[in-house]
Amino acid sequence: MVNVAILGFGTVGSGVAEVLTMNSALIEQRTGKAVRLKYILDVRDFPDSPYKDCFVKDFSVIESDPEVDVVVETIGGATVALDFTTRALKAGKSVVSSNKELVATHGYDLLQLAVEKGVSYLFEASVGGGIPVLRPLTNCLAGNELSEVRGILNGTTNYILTRMIRAGLSFEQALKEAQDNGYAERDPSADIEGHDACRKICILAALCFGRHIYPDQVPTQGITAITLADVDYANSCGYKIKLLGRALRMEGGKVCAYVAPHLVSSENPLAGVEDVFNAISATGNAVGDVMFYGRGAGKLPTASAVVGDIIDIAKDVTTRKRNEWAACDRSLFQSPEVLTFRWYVRAVGSMDAARAAFGEIMPLARGGAPAQEIAFLTESMTLAQLNEKLAALDVQSVIRVLA
Amino acid sequence: MVNVAILGFGTVGSGVAEVLTMNSALIEQRTGKAVRLKYILDVRDFPDSPYKDCFVKDFSVIESDPEVDVVVETIGGATVALDFTTRALKAGKSVVSSNKELVATHGYDLLQLAVEKGVSYLFEASVGGGIPVLRPLTNCLAGNELSEVRGILNGTTNYILTRMIRAGLSFEQALKEAQDNGYAERDPSADIEGHDACRKICILAALCFGRHIYPDQVPTQGITAITLADVDYANSCGYKIKLLGRALRMEGGKVCAYVAPHLVSSENPLAGVEDVFNAISATGNAVGDVMFYGRGAGKLPTASAVVGDIIDIAKDVTTRKRNEWAACDRSLFQSPEVLTFRWYVRAVGSMDAARAAFGEIMPLARGGAPAQEIAFLTESMTLAQLNEKLAALDVQSVIRVLA
Repeated sequence: MVNVAILGFGTVGSGVAEVLTMNSALIEQRTGKAVRLKYILDVRDFPDSPYKDCFVKDFSVIESDPEVDVVVETIGGATVALDFTTRALKAGKSVVSSNKELVATHGYDLLQLAVEKGVSYLFEASVGGGIPVLRPLTNCLAGNELSEVRGILNGTTNYILTRMIRAGLSFEQALKEAQDNGYAERDPSADIEGHDACRKICILAALCFGRHIYPDQVPTQGITAITLADVDYANSCGYKIKLLGRALRMEGGKVCAYVAPHLVSSENPLAGVEDVFNAISATGNAVGDVMFYGRGAGKLPTASAVVGDIIDIAKDVTTRKRNEWAACDRSLFQSPEVLTFRWYVRAVGSMDAARAAFGEIMPLARGGAPAQEIAFLTESMTLAQLNEKLAALDVQSVIRVLA
Repeated sequence: MVNVAILGFGTVGSGVAEVLTMNSALIEQRTGKAVRLKYILDVRDFPDSPYKDCFVKDFSVIESDPEVDVVVETIGGATVALDFTTRALKAGKSVVSSNKELVATHGYDLLQLAVEKGVSYLFEASVGGGIPVLRPLTNCLAGNELSEVRGILNGTTNYILTRMIRAGLSFEQALKEAQDNGYAERDPSADIEGHDACRKICILAALCFGRHIYPDQVPTQGITAITLADVDYANSCGYKIKLLGRALRMEGGKVCAYVAPHLVSSENPLAGVEDVFNAISATGNAVGDVMFYGRGAGKLPTASAVVGDIIDIAKDVTTRKRNEWAACDRSLFQSPEVLTFRWYVRAVGSMDAARAAFGEIMPLARGGAPAQEIAFLTESMTLAQLNEKLAALDVQSVIRVLA
């Protein structure tokens, strides 16, 4: 018998309870033991819940119960969740989390604590929701030196961009629709400004390249400046605009990471990832490119990943599941300014002025463009080189082209 | 120190040696111990190989060396490979294999033997080449009841179909090109007749649904009958023709599996899988649909999966890695004839005759079609129902439409 306590009975927490109940027979078959939901911690009352006998309001009940093997943290944020996770690990309990903010900001310390206590701290659900990605990257691809990991890491922004591309909605209209459909929060800034994707690329970078990277190190740009004009120009040359998080292994053990919109060629499988779906792709020196695709959020998909972690621990609660990286070393972070890209540029001016500044360019056209609007793709160059040439133009939009 | 012996120094075997050498430092870091290539078994001589000191011609050297922990079987086929795998397991050595034919035909017996001897029998490379798929399905998605697993499981046929679709080559021209590029064997029948995909869907079905299924149970149809006319008609209605292996959980614990070409909607991520790439998607009752994508064959991608398995074992050679299913029960196999599909039909005759036979149909058109050629999509029905209605027509091609 393995006993589980869930912290927080919100969307993910209630999903975990549901999956543990719905699939209890097969979970017992796969772990060789019963996995019992013993406690749910929430400040609210749920008198009509089928789990009503599990609810407690005081974390110390869970912390001090020696029967509890696994604590599932679905509270979110990095305050109460940090306190309870720390106390659970100190009490010798393994912790499973869907909380990307906590892992991205305190993952190294919490993993160290888990090592000290000989327990597991697993968080497959923190990146890509239900998509198996962290475990495949660290286990199945362990024979590879990975050079890059990149992905569509945020379902809300991908939904908005998909609706702009396919239905011709403006950013504001698409955001409103996403909010009406429950895909975006009332305050959508964590999604549309790229912060959610930033936390996830930090976790991926740490797992793939072995060293903690903090969100504040990672230059992050969201999708609020993307217009239908940009979508149309991208489409005219066979690209789709996608918000990507990228982390790259650089020379000298350095790692580069950033979040920004990109023009992605229709030939790239990432371009076909639509609506709220996520996809993470990685490049290894043996395997080449692989991609993992599925629902990056939602109650049951996220719960699927959490329960996968619970099962991994439940199979043998006495063996710590490895999941480690080294402390942050800010001197080993490489700014993305060294990277070269082809760039998409939209400006007010003449194509002659653009050619004078850039030399070789690929002009783009769209129906209904205002007079004086120009758009083009540049040759490959760094951001600094681009900015120097852009000084001659009245620039309205600049987006990286994914090579 | 973990000692490895590779059986067979062909494409995959030499790739495994290369990856173990190229990435030895990181493999040691990830396993906490040195992983040494001690033996390579091959009947041929390789006097100029960097591994020339490892070669042996007599399997009993490997079998009787107590230092050998892991035997990598990349011989292929189910004769010598079966003998050596059996003897290695009996000698208490874990075995890693890329051999889908052996796993599909003798997997249950070999897994039972591994259980008895307390060693591991792992074969991530047998399905999807370098793509992490077997371990994610059985570990990360362990909290799900899976209802279906399906995929583009053979890179050779996907390359041929892609070239027919994108370059307008005939099947024969595309096959010739695949052979010239080294993507197809001189005798391509195992690929183009669907047998390779059949073995892989048997392995996926066993892992997902828990019971051995033999290739001879699985109705298998290849791509030799696909013409450019079919490709054009499919394209006209937003579909691509893909060879899919499918396995479905049916009522009463039954499992249905088959291999056949399908019309796949461009909206489905499987439609975007091109050239020699493979993709496997699965549906779970919590996660919904997930998909794994990458190179399904080739020296280093396949070696990547083999080395991932070696690392998994090397981390703790005393703990058997679970990988199990039950014996075959032929009474629990469900013929795909119970499944309903919309069908693509190409025939010689009149659309009126087609309507008379089928009632509601969706007519298709293509440029340059001969007089009297018709093509259409039917409503949903079983194969038996289809065949009854087809009796009235001079049928040239029939292909399932993936729902």
